[in-house]
Amino acid sequence: MSNAAALERETGTNFMPRYDAQGLVTGIAIDAHSKDVLMVAFMDAEAVARTRETGLAHFHSRSRGRLWLKGETSGHFLRVQDILVDCDQDALVMLVKPEGPACHTGARSCFYRKLAGDGLVPVEE
Amino acid sequence: MSNAAALERETGTNFMPRYDAQGLVTGIAIDAHSKDVLMVAFMDAEAVARTRETGLAHFHSRSRGRLWLKGETSGHFLRVQDILVDCDQDALVMLVKPEGPACHTGARSCFYRKLAGDGLVPVEE
Repeated sequence: MSNAAALERETGTNFMPRYDAQGLVTGIAIDAHSKDVLMVAFMDAEAVARTRETGLAHFHSRSRGRLWLKGETSGHFLRVQDILVDCDQDALVMLVKPEGPACHTGARSCFYRKLAGDGLVPVEE
Repeated sequence: MSNAAALERETGTNFMPRYDAQGLVTGIAIDAHSKDVLMVAFMDAEAVARTRETGLAHFHSRSRGRLWLKGETSGHFLRVQDILVDCDQDALVMLVKPEGPACHTGARSCFYRKLAGDGLVPVEE
């Protein structure tokens, strides 16, 4: 990438996601109210486009190799209120209103454990 | 991955990061006080180990292909207070106390813009 392109990406007003070799950027869903991180996954150009069109968070499932509307089976959609973009435009933060638990385990957030010593303990809510 | 291994990873107390084919997990630094997202990058096993040993956020620089201590040139280290782990252990959230701007542009956070229509606008602080 040229310096001019990098500068435009960092300082400009054009949305120009920088997809990696797999065609992905990182997508992070954060509860717009509590600011808790709910989940992290990857988005390809299709997922970004569908998210913007519908206002519902879409990802690209690497394991299933296809577009994934979060909540498509559970009904626990994430309604996107804002999308923040980082300096080099390879990560997106979606501020969302969750319609149910964000994690497939039933937890409110996928981040329900934290490191303590060598192991994991539950995060206090 | 077997179902048993997946279940252990999701429900257990063992820290067993699930590195991808490139040997990476996603690392997200969040301001422990304001809960604002500061930056997102990737971590390999070495970066995870050094972060745990030193209490300072380390990443793996994909562009430079090496370990990267955040702040190694700027002095703007991220002091890690807690590390949250997600359900399938392929993403880590570090709750940090930043010692200066987190972004190389000088911004407090790398997420200083948001989508508005087809373009980007500054995030109001």
